Amino acid sequence: MSGAPKIVNLAEKLSKIDEHWDPRIVGHYNGNEIRLAKIKGDFVWHAHTETDEMFLVLSGNMGIEFRDGVRHFGAGEMVVVRRGTEHRPFAEDECHILFMDKEGEPNTGDTPSNLTREKLDFI
Amino acid sequence: MSGAPKIVNLAEKLSKIDEHWDPRIVGHYNGNEIRLAKIKGDFVWHAHTETDEMFLVLSGNMGIEFRDGVRHFGAGEMVVVRRGTEHRPFAEDECHILFMDKEGEPNTGDTPSNLTREKLDFI
Repeated sequence: MSGAPKIVNLAEKLSKIDEHWDPRIVGHYNGNEIRLAKIKGDFVWHAHTETDEMFLVLSGNMGIEFRDGVRHFGAGEMVVVRRGTEHRPFAEDECHILFMDKEGEPNTGDTPSNLTREKLDFI
Repeated sequence: MSGAPKIVNLAEKLSKIDEHWDPRIVGHYNGNEIRLAKIKGDFVWHAHTETDEMFLVLSGNMGIEFRDGVRHFGAGEMVVVRRGTEHRPFAEDECHILFMDKEGEPNTGDTPSNLTREKLDFI
């Protein structure tokens, strides 16, 4: 079935991720990367100047701090952070997310740190 | 909180959709529409010549027929159909999906029919 694309099972892909804040690519869509991550604890303040960022929580709960407040959301909830918007993701307990950025965008956007992943692997 | 985006609860949005094959927009991301739909029965053969199409099953099971075979997938599974690829979605029982196309893309792509939705409403 050369023309029929592969089905991606998100739980199966997540089972291959060992570290928090270590995103992997599970698909490409219109020049964007569909990514999975396990997150826990605090991420860094950053913005993505050239791409919106979409977050969908698959299990658990997370929050995103913005300069004017905090949003909390959980499994089955999503949010789109507009390009250029400063934000800081966090999760008290382990949380599994699907998210999207344009291809090649570092996870920390404009703010390199020890959490930066420049080029993500396909999983 | 002007800069903090709204959280979208997918189940709450789905509860507002009454018809099968009647997609609605729940977000915009990099020139694409994040869409929700309830599907049941057979859709039409079509292709999207200018956009990839991403499907993520939220509940239930669906299939997509391609010219060289059928893929079946269920909750927690996703697939990206490349632009130009002929396909025909279907679902034996009601299935809830999140999917993405570029902004303004009709749901039936290059094949207008009585199932065509040209311009989708935000829900």
